[in-house]
Amino acid sequence: MYTVTFKFENGDRVAAYAVPGENLLEVAQKTNVAIDAPCGGNGACGKCKVKLVGGELESPKTHHITDEEYAQGWRLSCVSKVTADVEVLVPDIASAYRSRMKVADLDSAEELHIFEKTKADVMEAGIEFKNDLEVMIVAMEAPSLDNTMPDNERLIWALKDAGSASDVSITYIALKKLAETLRKSSFKVQCVIQRVGDKIEVLDVIPAGEAAKVCGLAVDIGTTSVAALIIDMQNGEILAKASTGNAQIRYGADVINRIIEQQKDGGRKKLQDAIVEETLNPLIGEMCRSAKISPKQVYRMCVAGNTTMNHLLLGVDADPVRMEPFIPTFFETDSLVAQDLGLNIYPRARIIMAPNIGSYVGGDITAGTLASTIWNSEEMSLFIDLGTNGELVFGNAEFMMSCACSAGPAFEGGDISCGMRATDGAIEACEIDRETMVPTFKIVGDAGQKPVGICGSGIIDIISELFRCGIISPKGKFIREGERIRHDEYGMGSYVLAFKEEAASVKDIELTEVDIDNFIRAKGAIFSAIRVMLQSLDFDVSMIDRVLVAGGIGSGINMKNAVSIGMFPDIELEKFLYIGNSSLSGAYTMLYSVSAEEKVAEVAHNMTYLELSNEPTYMDEFVACCFLPHTDAGLFPSLEMK
Amino acid sequence: MYTVTFKFENGDRVAAYAVPGENLLEVAQKTNVAIDAPCGGNGACGKCKVKLVGGELESPKTHHITDEEYAQGWRLSCVSKVTADVEVLVPDIASAYRSRMKVADLDSAEELHIFEKTKADVMEAGIEFKNDLEVMIVAMEAPSLDNTMPDNERLIWALKDAGSASDVSITYIALKKLAETLRKSSFKVQCVIQRVGDKIEVLDVIPAGEAAKVCGLAVDIGTTSVAALIIDMQNGEILAKASTGNAQIRYGADVINRIIEQQKDGGRKKLQDAIVEETLNPLIGEMCRSAKISPKQVYRMCVAGNTTMNHLLLGVDADPVRMEPFIPTFFETDSLVAQDLGLNIYPRARIIMAPNIGSYVGGDITAGTLASTIWNSEEMSLFIDLGTNGELVFGNAEFMMSCACSAGPAFEGGDISCGMRATDGAIEACEIDRETMVPTFKIVGDAGQKPVGICGSGIIDIISELFRCGIISPKGKFIREGERIRHDEYGMGSYVLAFKEEAASVKDIELTEVDIDNFIRAKGAIFSAIRVMLQSLDFDVSMIDRVLVAGGIGSGINMKNAVSIGMFPDIELEKFLYIGNSSLSGAYTMLYSVSAEEKVAEVAHNMTYLELSNEPTYMDEFVACCFLPHTDAGLFPSLEMK
Repeated sequence: MYTVTFKFENGDRVAAYAVPGENLLEVAQKTNVAIDAPCGGNGACGKCKVKLVGGELESPKTHHITDEEYAQGWRLSCVSKVTADVEVLVPDIASAYRSRMKVADLDSAEELHIFEKTKADVMEAGIEFKNDLEVMIVAMEAPSLDNTMPDNERLIWALKDAGSASDVSITYIALKKLAETLRKSSFKVQCVIQRVGDKIEVLDVIPAGEAAKVCGLAVDIGTTSVAALIIDMQNGEILAKASTGNAQIRYGADVINRIIEQQKDGGRKKLQDAIVEETLNPLIGEMCRSAKISPKQVYRMCVAGNTTMNHLLLGVDADPVRMEPFIPTFFETDSLVAQDLGLNIYPRARIIMAPNIGSYVGGDITAGTLASTIWNSEEMSLFIDLGTNGELVFGNAEFMMSCACSAGPAFEGGDISCGMRATDGAIEACEIDRETMVPTFKIVGDAGQKPVGICGSGIIDIISELFRCGIISPKGKFIREGERIRHDEYGMGSYVLAFKEEAASVKDIELTEVDIDNFIRAKGAIFSAIRVMLQSLDFDVSMIDRVLVAGGIGSGINMKNAVSIGMFPDIELEKFLYIGNSSLSGAYTMLYSVSAEEKVAEVAHNMTYLELSNEPTYMDEFVACCFLPHTDAGLFPSLEMK
Repeated sequence: MYTVTFKFENGDRVAAYAVPGENLLEVAQKTNVAIDAPCGGNGACGKCKVKLVGGELESPKTHHITDEEYAQGWRLSCVSKVTADVEVLVPDIASAYRSRMKVADLDSAEELHIFEKTKADVMEAGIEFKNDLEVMIVAMEAPSLDNTMPDNERLIWALKDAGSASDVSITYIALKKLAETLRKSSFKVQCVIQRVGDKIEVLDVIPAGEAAKVCGLAVDIGTTSVAALIIDMQNGEILAKASTGNAQIRYGADVINRIIEQQKDGGRKKLQDAIVEETLNPLIGEMCRSAKISPKQVYRMCVAGNTTMNHLLLGVDADPVRMEPFIPTFFETDSLVAQDLGLNIYPRARIIMAPNIGSYVGGDITAGTLASTIWNSEEMSLFIDLGTNGELVFGNAEFMMSCACSAGPAFEGGDISCGMRATDGAIEACEIDRETMVPTFKIVGDAGQKPVGICGSGIIDIISELFRCGIISPKGKFIREGERIRHDEYGMGSYVLAFKEEAASVKDIELTEVDIDNFIRAKGAIFSAIRVMLQSLDFDVSMIDRVLVAGGIGSGINMKNAVSIGMFPDIELEKFLYIGNSSLSGAYTMLYSVSAEEKVAEVAHNMTYLELSNEPTYMDEFVACCFLPHTDAGLFPSLEMK
């Protein structure tokens, strides 16, 4: 056995044992050291670099590592074997996944404003903000030798009477504490009840006089990150908010790699544990402490996630989702409670899952569609959720069609050599001087923050600017020369945004031709999906009244630049609107409102799903879109005029 | 810390640590060494004797221990303090509680015959033997790109179609294995379903071709012993049977001591663990192994227990049951599933509890009443369940009244110095020669078995014989002299049934005046209860058409002797019938038949409960009954004629 020591730039160290010849990335994974490995560890993406700082490691040089880097000690962990005691440095960009994101969703004034606006729109669209939970105070006659009704019947009669209910049942949790609670407060108690029609279920009994807080939990489970809210179910107030990385990231950056991982022995349990035990339960604990409530006071939960995330959360086999004919185990499920999944809230809390409508259009999109209110408008709206998968919904009150395309993790900084999520240190916006080719950029975080990497909105800007300044060709290849433009030994060009001296990183922050190519394919997937979907409906982009953009790409997204690189259709910029994390606002709405829960089910039933891989034109469209802005420049008339 | 070593007569040893001064009985209890302590350890009953065989023990002599016994090393464990390393022998009579009873209920041909007769009677009374579980085989079209319905909807549609159901739901347990199971057997599966009206719940999915066994578990939870059956839910066949001591016995022999114990810190959990983890789960495991099934194939469970046992099983506070005005938390509960209680069977198996109807008339009696079929007869029947508590039901198809009296554990051998349950080595029947006063007895177990102690039916015979032979007075005092009659230093008389040389015991097997007195009070409690209940209805014993005797006292009960000591009313002997463990046969019936489940609820609702402690005449009647056969000899005319 050898000892592997993982060092982090903040000085933390984690040690693990490894058998001779063991794969370094696997040692890291089983030790819960998160090394970024979007490709799942097959040597393809080159993101799992670590720096050898002590001992020995058997590790070949690959094309992802330059001679200079190799000399400095950089190694790809997925191709490294432990052959002696070894000490490696896990660099910041990777170890960022290890700690919580510092910035919670809805933390900025701008995002909160977007959230409140969404709420108001949904309410205006006719959704009543009322749920099935309430606190009822009931007083009963104390028992005597002449009145010997057992406690549960005594309570049931009192509730039938006070609550005009035909049927009252008491959960085992409430039954267990009933005798003590009734006697503690002289047979006057507060009941946390769930009312469906004229049926009441008693979830909890609390002595009169003690605080009876009824809370709910809304969670957006993304492939990359997870955002959550704890709210007061009686007034909708947000009591706590938090976001974190999805701990499943260790098992691959995209849904396909996760599905492959869950197919292995014990894999379903491992991935379920990663989301429940390592991601959600700590997040819940943190939020409850901050809201000063007990997790047992969270009586209702709503989850919005894509189809794969929903399957992995439940621990059901997701493999048929990725294999033709792409069949999920479920679109909807309505009988789940928290204890089924091991979630640390009120054990019998109902788990409301926003329904999936296809293998690649899931609850995040149906919840997001609710939040978008496109189902309530005569206007033809295009709703785009930019995540690791890109999903589109097009339609209005009359009809809705959805589809999904595999954009890859580029919008969230994956598949990009210096990519990162929109957290502290990320370049989120950029301009380039046409003459000097020197960039000016905006960085997420406090003033004075040095750049660490580039997030999705930053990449859009950089590519748009490089193209505008004639630095790259429509194919994304470097065609000008200068201090910031380099070519490596294989001839691959790159543009340096920040030399390492200016950056909070161990190397220069740059965008390479491979990165640009990856991003062009991502935006091409989105734009070709828009084209094919509209064509299938005999629509034209000119008929789009509104484009609603959602997702983790960040509020920094520059719509003009996104159009100029051919990511979005070339229509009036005022038709574009960034609506934030619509999956989370949809989950909030469904959590707080039974009428919203019903509306999402209705929206899901009415939504048509277009499987793009079945559309013969999609591949040609996609290839045509892998160009700046497009092989058919006529599709972007406004760019011609500039 | 000192080491306490408990030795057993079979050679087993168990060691434990104790702090200086710790109570020996408490050390035994926390080490799970079961020392018989019916009084709960307050020095009253004198049953917790152990023999000091090594080391030292600080232990006063009490009146429960003779000088000779003290010299031999006998000590009461409940008054002993550990002050050094010590080794004690736990004698057989006490350690009998430690191991399983060797004889399962329904093991003898006679008991099986009684059981089959009960089943036939119940069926004849109109109970349909049909339950809500079944196995449905459904075949579905395999999915394709043109048929992309998710797995759960595919199954739901198939079941709606094949099962003519309006509503189908799938448990999480079945959902988790759905994708694999469908694909393993080409979309043809066996579903274990529960059908209520036209609603179907899918409990399990099993590939076509694999064995789909649907089993059920019936349990009679007695204060002293627990008996259980595993049956095939499709034909009612008994697949396994077992009985064992209730591990709660460590915490007191009767319900009152157990309730006091559960009031202590952590007591409810401790008592619940004793019945679930230490008693039921091992019993279930043993039965499943013997029936060659998995515990997960047990999809339905029925429990019959007294009100206190039911409360302790659920871990709900039982204290209000014993304190005036004697209010239980519940009579009925219908939403429990196995995983709520930690029972190791199919986690969502419904737990059907035979309803309680009063604090001291519980599910064992309502289930037993079902089995007695007195609810279906014009004849006036008296149903007597002789347990640690004695319960009576009197009535017919028109009305039923029930009451309970505290008989104490004497019928099961408790509160009797050489008492034991009706297991191997128990004297179960006895005759005494009037001249020589020498006993002849029948012993439970193999031929050649030496006597170990005396069980309930044996005590009835011995007292009846002692009285018939003029050896004891109507007050139970010794009035003849002889080799087998002794008086101790305080003048207390006793009759020796077997000198220790003839016995498989460490001391003589005898019946003392205290024992006789305890038993007279037990039989007095039963007879006075019968008197008071009949009086309250303006009935007379002559109006009783049938007396049905049930309980663990054993099929060896001699009705004539029971009448002759004034335990049962003096009516024609052919009106008496021993019906075995009616609580277990009732539980079996409710498990196997939904119509029986409904009938028990109806019986419970229609049954009146008479609280004897509220009856002004009860105490006087009880005092008058503490006599052989009774202070009013006119109540036993047949005895006069002998």
